[in-house]
Amino acid sequence: MEIIKPYKGKCEYSYTLGAFPTYELLKNRPEAVKEVYVHSSYTDKDKLGELCSRAGISLFTNDKQIARLSDKENVYVIGVYNKYESVLAKDRPHLMLVNPGNMGNVGTIIRTATAFNIFDIAIISPGVDIHNPKVVRGSMGALFHVNVEYFDSFESYSKIYCTNERECFSFMLTAKEQLTLNTCPKPDLYTLIFGNEASGLPEEYATYAKPLIIPQSEHVDSLNLTIACGIGMYMFNNR
Amino acid sequence: MEIIKPYKGKCEYSYTLGAFPTYELLKNRPEAVKEVYVHSSYTDKDKLGELCSRAGISLFTNDKQIARLSDKENVYVIGVYNKYESVLAKDRPHLMLVNPGNMGNVGTIIRTATAFNIFDIAIISPGVDIHNPKVVRGSMGALFHVNVEYFDSFESYSKIYCTNERECFSFMLTAKEQLTLNTCPKPDLYTLIFGNEASGLPEEYATYAKPLIIPQSEHVDSLNLTIACGIGMYMFNNR
Repeated sequence: MEIIKPYKGKCEYSYTLGAFPTYELLKNRPEAVKEVYVHSSYTDKDKLGELCSRAGISLFTNDKQIARLSDKENVYVIGVYNKYESVLAKDRPHLMLVNPGNMGNVGTIIRTATAFNIFDIAIISPGVDIHNPKVVRGSMGALFHVNVEYFDSFESYSKIYCTNERECFSFMLTAKEQLTLNTCPKPDLYTLIFGNEASGLPEEYATYAKPLIIPQSEHVDSLNLTIACGIGMYMFNNR
Repeated sequence: MEIIKPYKGKCEYSYTLGAFPTYELLKNRPEAVKEVYVHSSYTDKDKLGELCSRAGISLFTNDKQIARLSDKENVYVIGVYNKYESVLAKDRPHLMLVNPGNMGNVGTIIRTATAFNIFDIAIISPGVDIHNPKVVRGSMGALFHVNVEYFDSFESYSKIYCTNERECFSFMLTAKEQLTLNTCPKPDLYTLIFGNEASGLPEEYATYAKPLIIPQSEHVDSLNLTIACGIGMYMFNNR
């Protein structure tokens, strides 16, 4: 049993903090799990032990290991897993995040995506490391339901995934066309594109995809990114 | 010049942390402002000084006072104001938050409300103190655009504000009617009601108002409160 140290980007492993995301990991990505740690005071050990032993995964009671990773928060279960890569499904809708910077936001957005039946997420680099435990936690384990693929540019994404069937939409404050209940497009296959929390989408995204704006009053500069993503995904899922 | 200590609920004053929310305070609630503090290294002091002197508000350069309130964050401007109470406008749409618990969430929700033309917010107690600097900051100063009124129960709200013209909607996971593009109600005057982050709305709210659910997949227990509020307010504003 090696000692698992707090996460850094270069690590080949990451981990879930808490029982709920650990169950999501065990159910959805059992092949990636290295081992599970549980605190001696955790009360629901039998259920967790059964799930682990069925999948051939070691479960260790180790308070020191939990304390080392949990950063002062109340955590009783940690699942350590080998980081993995995914590719997107070609026949499903995609969410694209261009240079997302906030780990909690990306976690919340991933979770919201699964609520609105989006299970394939493209990230244009640079962007947050989705395996950072802060993203995993923000997603409440929804990360293990989705495919996330990184690209160095929109072009490298479009080469693989942009077909005649797929329509792409760039959410931009400079867009002329408003996303409303009456005008919401109804493509079978779509990619919804959102920019960075502070800077939005670069202007060239107005040429890569159809620009849309969520109508908003003059009282705010822009909507919070997680809310804009939530509204966009809700509207396209709910047609 | 008295010494302003870090905020507690019993204080008669609160404060903005940062230039942007301080400008919002000065523009929208100048009568409430006690004084403004600026750090000696703040570069845009002339504009701020002009706004303060026009409103007869004292501006002090005081690095110690800034450090005392800013809690290690980079803050260059602080506006101290006397806490005030508001009543809601009877002829405008309302947002109602029942027992909201997270200060950052409430700040974000207030800001999003102004984006969707809701400027009147009812809070059913217990709920966060909207004058806590964490709410003010989360709202990015949008707090100063809105009226917020506290009530001890739905009944005490409804006695004053529920007329024949106003339709109330409770967002609940147990609702049968889905909020969709085709079925979104179109009342002239409405109140949108959302529950606590962890526990949602108490069941009796299904009798106080018309229950609605935002359709969501089985992959999440519920949407994040800020996202649910964002979608609800967007839909009712955008008819």
